[in-house]
Amino acid sequence: MKTLFSAISCFFTLLFFGQQTSKNLIPFVKPIIGTQRMGHVYPGATAPFGMVQLSPDTDTIPYAVNGKYNPDVYRYCAGYQYDDKTIVGFSHTHFSGTGHSDLGDFLIMPTIGNLQLNPGTATAPSKGFRSTFSHENELAEAGYYKVKLDDHNITAELTASTRVGMHQYTFPKTDQAHIILDLMAGIYNYDEKNVWTYIRVVNDTLVTGYKQTNGWARTRTIYFAMSFSKPFKNYGQKNFDEKQVYRGFWRKFDQEDNFPEIAGKKIRMFFDFDTEANEKIKVKFALSPVSQKNALQNLTEEIPHWDFEKVKKQTQNSWNQELNKIQVDASPDDKTNFYTAMYHAFITPTVYQDRNGEYKGLDQDVHQANGFTNYTTFSLWDTYRTLHPLFNILQPKRNADMVASMLAHYDQSSLHMLPIWSHHANDNWCMSGYHSVSVIADAILKGTYTGDAEAALNACVITARKSNYEGIGYYIDKGYIPAEKSGISVSNTLEYAYDDWTIAQLAKKLNKTDIYNEFILRSENWRNNFNPVSGFMEPKLANGTFKKDFDAYSTHGQGFIEGNSWNYSFFVPHNPDALVTIMGGKKQFGKKLDTLFTMHLSDAFFAETEDITRDGIIGGYVHGNEPAHHVVYLYNWADQPWKTQERVRQILKMQYKPTPDGLGGNDDCGQMSAWYIFSSMGFYPVAPGSLEYAIGSPLITNAIIHLENGKTFEVATQNQSETNPYVKKIILNGKTLERYYITHDEIMNGGKITFIMSSKK
Amino acid sequence: MKTLFSAISCFFTLLFFGQQTSKNLIPFVKPIIGTQRMGHVYPGATAPFGMVQLSPDTDTIPYAVNGKYNPDVYRYCAGYQYDDKTIVGFSHTHFSGTGHSDLGDFLIMPTIGNLQLNPGTATAPSKGFRSTFSHENELAEAGYYKVKLDDHNITAELTASTRVGMHQYTFPKTDQAHIILDLMAGIYNYDEKNVWTYIRVVNDTLVTGYKQTNGWARTRTIYFAMSFSKPFKNYGQKNFDEKQVYRGFWRKFDQEDNFPEIAGKKIRMFFDFDTEANEKIKVKFALSPVSQKNALQNLTEEIPHWDFEKVKKQTQNSWNQELNKIQVDASPDDKTNFYTAMYHAFITPTVYQDRNGEYKGLDQDVHQANGFTNYTTFSLWDTYRTLHPLFNILQPKRNADMVASMLAHYDQSSLHMLPIWSHHANDNWCMSGYHSVSVIADAILKGTYTGDAEAALNACVITARKSNYEGIGYYIDKGYIPAEKSGISVSNTLEYAYDDWTIAQLAKKLNKTDIYNEFILRSENWRNNFNPVSGFMEPKLANGTFKKDFDAYSTHGQGFIEGNSWNYSFFVPHNPDALVTIMGGKKQFGKKLDTLFTMHLSDAFFAETEDITRDGIIGGYVHGNEPAHHVVYLYNWADQPWKTQERVRQILKMQYKPTPDGLGGNDDCGQMSAWYIFSSMGFYPVAPGSLEYAIGSPLITNAIIHLENGKTFEVATQNQSETNPYVKKIILNGKTLERYYITHDEIMNGGKITFIMSSKK
Repeated sequence: MKTLFSAISCFFTLLFFGQQTSKNLIPFVKPIIGTQRMGHVYPGATAPFGMVQLSPDTDTIPYAVNGKYNPDVYRYCAGYQYDDKTIVGFSHTHFSGTGHSDLGDFLIMPTIGNLQLNPGTATAPSKGFRSTFSHENELAEAGYYKVKLDDHNITAELTASTRVGMHQYTFPKTDQAHIILDLMAGIYNYDEKNVWTYIRVVNDTLVTGYKQTNGWARTRTIYFAMSFSKPFKNYGQKNFDEKQVYRGFWRKFDQEDNFPEIAGKKIRMFFDFDTEANEKIKVKFALSPVSQKNALQNLTEEIPHWDFEKVKKQTQNSWNQELNKIQVDASPDDKTNFYTAMYHAFITPTVYQDRNGEYKGLDQDVHQANGFTNYTTFSLWDTYRTLHPLFNILQPKRNADMVASMLAHYDQSSLHMLPIWSHHANDNWCMSGYHSVSVIADAILKGTYTGDAEAALNACVITARKSNYEGIGYYIDKGYIPAEKSGISVSNTLEYAYDDWTIAQLAKKLNKTDIYNEFILRSENWRNNFNPVSGFMEPKLANGTFKKDFDAYSTHGQGFIEGNSWNYSFFVPHNPDALVTIMGGKKQFGKKLDTLFTMHLSDAFFAETEDITRDGIIGGYVHGNEPAHHVVYLYNWADQPWKTQERVRQILKMQYKPTPDGLGGNDDCGQMSAWYIFSSMGFYPVAPGSLEYAIGSPLITNAIIHLENGKTFEVATQNQSETNPYVKKIILNGKTLERYYITHDEIMNGGKITFIMSSKK
Repeated sequence: MKTLFSAISCFFTLLFFGQQTSKNLIPFVKPIIGTQRMGHVYPGATAPFGMVQLSPDTDTIPYAVNGKYNPDVYRYCAGYQYDDKTIVGFSHTHFSGTGHSDLGDFLIMPTIGNLQLNPGTATAPSKGFRSTFSHENELAEAGYYKVKLDDHNITAELTASTRVGMHQYTFPKTDQAHIILDLMAGIYNYDEKNVWTYIRVVNDTLVTGYKQTNGWARTRTIYFAMSFSKPFKNYGQKNFDEKQVYRGFWRKFDQEDNFPEIAGKKIRMFFDFDTEANEKIKVKFALSPVSQKNALQNLTEEIPHWDFEKVKKQTQNSWNQELNKIQVDASPDDKTNFYTAMYHAFITPTVYQDRNGEYKGLDQDVHQANGFTNYTTFSLWDTYRTLHPLFNILQPKRNADMVASMLAHYDQSSLHMLPIWSHHANDNWCMSGYHSVSVIADAILKGTYTGDAEAALNACVITARKSNYEGIGYYIDKGYIPAEKSGISVSNTLEYAYDDWTIAQLAKKLNKTDIYNEFILRSENWRNNFNPVSGFMEPKLANGTFKKDFDAYSTHGQGFIEGNSWNYSFFVPHNPDALVTIMGGKKQFGKKLDTLFTMHLSDAFFAETEDITRDGIIGGYVHGNEPAHHVVYLYNWADQPWKTQERVRQILKMQYKPTPDGLGGNDDCGQMSAWYIFSSMGFYPVAPGSLEYAIGSPLITNAIIHLENGKTFEVATQNQSETNPYVKKIILNGKTLERYYITHDEIMNGGKITFIMSSKK
């Protein structure tokens, strides 16, 4: 009953639902945060970890113009840019916060008047089916989105269950109402990535089919079932692929008019209606990775009715349940930032399995998930750092399933590799490292994943020994990757070394001495790229000398990915003490950190660096990208914890704002948000695979973490204020904490930590 | 025991296998017959009705050259042309005898020396992987094919079980032996139809994957599992699609060298070996319409060993079992023609279902075949006439399954139509009529299909009422299709009328009076295209007048498909008596038939007419196409049966020869062969749906039909010779037959018919 009383004492606004206390936290979630500039999140509707992400797309940008990469495509990773004035339509799949992209499947747009089957342009929206809109007429909530489409005088509302998107369109009176289903649309190279589309109009309220793309996921098929609340009076399609062959015998039908068997590469469909004033037409749109019939089963089982409000309510209830896993007290803005971070953290990875347990495996065959729910979209270079560790506390059941999903990926991989960056039954091998091993080791070491640990270790080891992948062979032979052999030789060596340390930790736990010895040795390889003369991690040539003309500021050609040496040189999360030593001791190390946080970067730096603006940095510290996410906590190892504390508070305030431009960089599938959640509660997992969390400085006044094991861990503060960032004292379960970390068990066993805050260092 | 004793008395060469008498009939099957010119059959290996048709392709011809249709493609409907001097490789799927084409999937070619990944050309074979060959070093048997590939000094042998092709390559000694897997190759527009290919190299002896095409089948996916008898030492691939996007992150591997996850549009793979002199490398290659894992299951269950001879023997045993369903006595050439016709008649439709009962439906979803085996490739405009009626006698179990397959197609059709011309989960709606209804009605009326007859009738009726298909709406409203509305208005009206008559017969049997009345009325519609002034079937305009400038000889622009009015005007198979009457009575009708068989067609006719040469005709009678296949039997209705008899014998001799150029036209999935089988035994199903077979003139000396019900029907002759084509008398089961037909029951009840032959009319 401790939980309940603690809660009562802190939150006067608590509502009682039986024995459970649950607050309505939906008002604190602002999906619009991060939709401006580079957050790359979307404002539309999704259920927690849902397969469907139903959201407005504000433009359709080709990947290449006249054969050249179109840099503008980058802005549309999530399909929506806050500054845009038009909406092209609402599509059903989106990444949340990525820096490269895909998806954007099945774009739907309601229109009136003359039928237009091209999207038009941002500058001339009336030339196509898109519509102008304004943010005044827009509302984005967790699980619900609403907007007025000005050009068509239609109010569009969206909600979603796990596998089904639901649309509600309020039309004016017209005999020219249309619902367009654009099967050509897509995020990132929509113009090139479509491989095939197949559609069946089963009857006058049901359409099923699938779409295949060759995008970031090389071989991807996504199936759908689409149901209308009212029979359409007419339908048709246009095939925009002029090269499609073998039309011969199909001329036996007029295939553009009410013809139910449709296939091709570039297809847009339309469905016509008569509507009364304010008549609502609803659409249920289910997805499946496996088949049309599974999509239809998902549809009928998840939303067996036409009550839009009911779906919205159920999904918002689900969100409330997830959000209530941490009940915080903080300033309104901080609370909004916090719960929006919680929302963004609980979107990805996404469920990739049908109601009947079937999913498409990496081997492109259909599999039955036995004993777990299959997830996809593993942006592991980002999320191993903080998001999966957060799941080990807040979502252990799901994280165990995510580990099981990664191991299934391994089993289905003819490469015999764990995922690197995977989505929708494909791996695109994006970024450096092999960070699945960190997630798996962390989950097993923390007791989250209780499956076959030896099989899991074996998958990690086989992956880490994949000598023809990204310099691993050189790394094994020489202890580093020669700069001649890879453009990201230093990033990879540093990250492999950390990953190897997590394998060693897992091997130790399983008493696999040989494996432990092999990988603990490999985990020292970071030393091989450290140049004691410069004090930086630097690219090294095959002959053992460091590459000339090294530039610690540049992000290009220095052996790093999404970072420079200034940020990457601190990347030894598994052994900060050794790093402190090699860098000249605590004082020297602290000074180097000071320089990082205080330097002034030139305009030239920003001009040449993708993904980074002045918004995303503090001095030379880049928070908008991940490699230095742990760095602010390293002051603890320099015996200057107050610098961690003040800088953490600074990052929390500067990099996260409750505004559309509130995210300083890509949210990266929740990684940036997970950083916020941990840091705002005063602790952070510097090295997943370790059971320790470094102490920072809490931003919130109070937080109660409701654990799946039924226990609660409370984070309390005293003298908390914006001007009191320093932690004077910590009391854990009634005793003063004499160290700058807490352990995983201390959290999971439940209890209370109190931070006594101060304005003095 | 009657069966056995009859058999003994007729065939001194009989072998005894227990109580069964079975002959080795393999020597009489010459798959090479019809491979020259327009037979469009293939010489390779297949099991009876097998999913795999593993056969050499002698060229790869693009569908279009410089954007224009390449007429040469027509010659390669089956991939092989006897006159060619080179073999490109051995692919696993082929149509037998079609006049348009598709398939040609998964071409395999063994080579030695420097690796070449392009096929080369017929004139410069050494520039590519193809090889010259000669017919002297070629052997084609039922279920077995062998050829020496001269350029590579490799002997290639092929055999196949139902779902698995097996290759045996005898190599010379070399350290540069290759087996090429060409995933770009295909029959008909191989250059355009590939949509996607996916391949996994599972280990050093196993490869799985799939291929998708947009060919004659619009949306087709075919899966495979490929197993080698010996590990390859090295493998790789080349992607010939220069436009393939998103290669970026895949550069993390060298994807052309030993990289196991392959995908793209235009891929050729190679597998390298060292070989000793005369070393045999074997390949098992399984297909599935559903998945890689099903293909693998098909592979391991059907051929769980590496004994090539055993597979060959089993498949030839299967063929012998099928061939022994009729044991004939005839001249060696006639016997060869007969059993080659039996072989060609038992290839199509093909099994389209995995070992586990799963198949891909028309709706592109996976289905479980409950209670039947699913078949595909229904060339119904051809095969309803004679092949399916033949199956009602020789293959009732399979024909019932074919009907069930067609009804499943209907159930899966969002158009709500039975198949028109369907293969591999698609309908291409080729040709005129809706002849599924004839096959279904015939099978039910003859007791072959014992499933839900009312559901079957309903499917026929719904299909026949599909008013937006091919003029059916006009046909229903006006009784004919206005010439302005369709280029094949007369063919369709005539064939619909016949098809409707079959529906009426089925309705009558089921006591559905309303349906009977509706369709028996429609079956009279042939009258509306008959011009009493000219005495021909002619295209009629919407205003009720006949189209001007009518030409009864031309096959272009006259309202017919694959035929002219001279051939089509006799197309009232369901009511010859009425046709005789409308054409002026028996004498006049007989004269008209005489003119058909004796006229001399101009060279201009052949110049403008596809699919027909002087080989394929007798006078103006075109045997190489199907519309007049019944016509020779109509002399019976003119009381001139001797003319049927002499002309049947003439057609049998002129249109079927035991030579590579022995087929006068496309075999059309066995239709031409089925005509031979019936006619050479002296009777023919003029109107499927009727239980009567018209009497012709037997060519064979004796035939014993072994029925599935255990009974036998013997066709005996007396005074049979080439100069005695006339039937003087017929004795059926000891009694003189006083009519020019026998009934289905008379055959199926078993018994003996004896034709007393004579040289006099």
